[in-house]
Amino acid sequence: MQQGGRAVSEPDFSEGAAYVRGRFVPLAEAAVPLTDWGFSRSDVVYDVVHVYRGGFFRLADHLDRFHRAMAARQLAPAESREQMEAVLHRCVALTGLDDAYVSMMTLRGRPRVRGSRRPADCDNHFMAYAAPWIDVIPPEVQARGAHLMIASNPRIPDASVDPTVKNFQWADLTTSVLEAHTNHYDTSVLCDAEGFVTEGPGFNVFIVQDGRIVTPDRGSLQGITRRSVLEICAELGIEAAIAPVTREMLENADEVFAATTAGGVMPVARVGTASGVRILGNDRPGPISALLREEYWKRHEAGWHMTPVRRELAELPVPV
Amino acid sequence: MQQGGRAVSEPDFSEGAAYVRGRFVPLAEAAVPLTDWGFSRSDVVYDVVHVYRGGFFRLADHLDRFHRAMAARQLAPAESREQMEAVLHRCVALTGLDDAYVSMMTLRGRPRVRGSRRPADCDNHFMAYAAPWIDVIPPEVQARGAHLMIASNPRIPDASVDPTVKNFQWADLTTSVLEAHTNHYDTSVLCDAEGFVTEGPGFNVFIVQDGRIVTPDRGSLQGITRRSVLEICAELGIEAAIAPVTREMLENADEVFAATTAGGVMPVARVGTASGVRILGNDRPGPISALLREEYWKRHEAGWHMTPVRRELAELPVPV
Repeated sequence: MQQGGRAVSEPDFSEGAAYVRGRFVPLAEAAVPLTDWGFSRSDVVYDVVHVYRGGFFRLADHLDRFHRAMAARQLAPAESREQMEAVLHRCVALTGLDDAYVSMMTLRGRPRVRGSRRPADCDNHFMAYAAPWIDVIPPEVQARGAHLMIASNPRIPDASVDPTVKNFQWADLTTSVLEAHTNHYDTSVLCDAEGFVTEGPGFNVFIVQDGRIVTPDRGSLQGITRRSVLEICAELGIEAAIAPVTREMLENADEVFAATTAGGVMPVARVGTASGVRILGNDRPGPISALLREEYWKRHEAGWHMTPVRRELAELPVPV
Repeated sequence: MQQGGRAVSEPDFSEGAAYVRGRFVPLAEAAVPLTDWGFSRSDVVYDVVHVYRGGFFRLADHLDRFHRAMAARQLAPAESREQMEAVLHRCVALTGLDDAYVSMMTLRGRPRVRGSRRPADCDNHFMAYAAPWIDVIPPEVQARGAHLMIASNPRIPDASVDPTVKNFQWADLTTSVLEAHTNHYDTSVLCDAEGFVTEGPGFNVFIVQDGRIVTPDRGSLQGITRRSVLEICAELGIEAAIAPVTREMLENADEVFAATTAGGVMPVARVGTASGVRILGNDRPGPISALLREEYWKRHEAGWHMTPVRRELAELPVPV
């Protein structure tokens, strides 16, 4: 590439590649204008899909959910679904990564009419990036089993903010994380005001009681890893349901585990509050949690729900 | 300024000046990295102060509230309060504006430890900008009186997200704005799940009944314009209180008005829902609302709570 008569080096996408307003840029250069309502109103929906050994996991399911979220918020960017899918492939291809975390988001944008406060006047836009894989719960914590604090603050009710529309409005989750860390837990889980378990910051929660699995029916994202867990349970003949889970059920469970795109199935070894902790089993991942974790990754290796990354897209000219 | 041996033009701050990571840049160039938790978790607190005819209005009160919000979220940027204050002055001075909207915010930032999900590992940072004045409710709408829709969705409860910590997590407010516009209202007001009035998207709400003013005691920001209104009422001998306001009280009020930094006192002429609207008085601003609006701006002209912008700060070398 030439600029001002002087050869400049190719952009380095190894730490992440992003799609911003029609251009592909290194992730470190990708930014949101201070005046974009995607920032200043957190008026943005997103989704995250992972790439494992060169393949997207359940890409169509993630895109389905992402499009439902955009529709729910009346967000309509210029890119078609097929174009978005090509952008995601190209972001991964540019990084050259085999294992990646791929985020897609649609922001409200800025008003075309100066000073307008009307969402309909805004120029919605799609952004995406691929970055090296990260776990929501570090691998060494997953191996020993996470320590989960039941938050003091209640989850935002579904009637106020629909938790199935994936969003960045983490105030209640962040409050619980700050409290959990103060109390030396790894992370948190929130109940609603009625005492029903909802979800944690970035993951669904499951309890195992007498060999039966239950995951909450409210206050939660309709997780795609959650769906995968339920499918695996069906295949293995383990009884599993989406149903109300009370705080008491969580506190008295035989086993607890979390599930998320950025980590898969993540066993929990302790559950508690500021005033006391309950150690589950032998203070390590329970047998059913460990089995599901193993089965989840075994299916990844067998190509379950996998879409190979279209590596050839990296070879297009990059308009940076 | 010289660059590469070639004279370059001075930056143009007339459409806004921003402070980003220690540098002053035109607002249009100010951006938040895609991976900053201030965006990707909306983990950010903010405040907005206005400048009227060359003076900040109640600057110390805004800085007090901003610092309480940072403390509540365990956010600690490098800048001292005095440095922040100087940054705000300099942003306005650079724009050369007499009337401006000045925003300050502290973002969680990105983790210093790669892949960390711990807020304590993040590099918090302060940002600010000054931009030309805008009204939350356009002046022509203020003149006729705004049409306010009572939202179908409830406000996020105080127990889940503290509304006195000013934040960008507007999902419930944005939902109500989309609904209001679909139903041909100007903007919205939200009740909580128990049927008590809270606030609108970016403003406090007041009702006037039998000459007495009430503004809600819950689900609301502790507005600085609200405080100004209460002070003016005290001076004028108008009875006013922060107290519970039921939906019925709002629907049956003699007058309704809104109050916010970006607009001052803004009269309301209609209140309703999708199924019907109530026209207040003669479908125009009520007499007490109009009086308070007039008194609010009259006090501005008299220099009430004003801090002159330190224009000399524009003359420092600008490190862009």
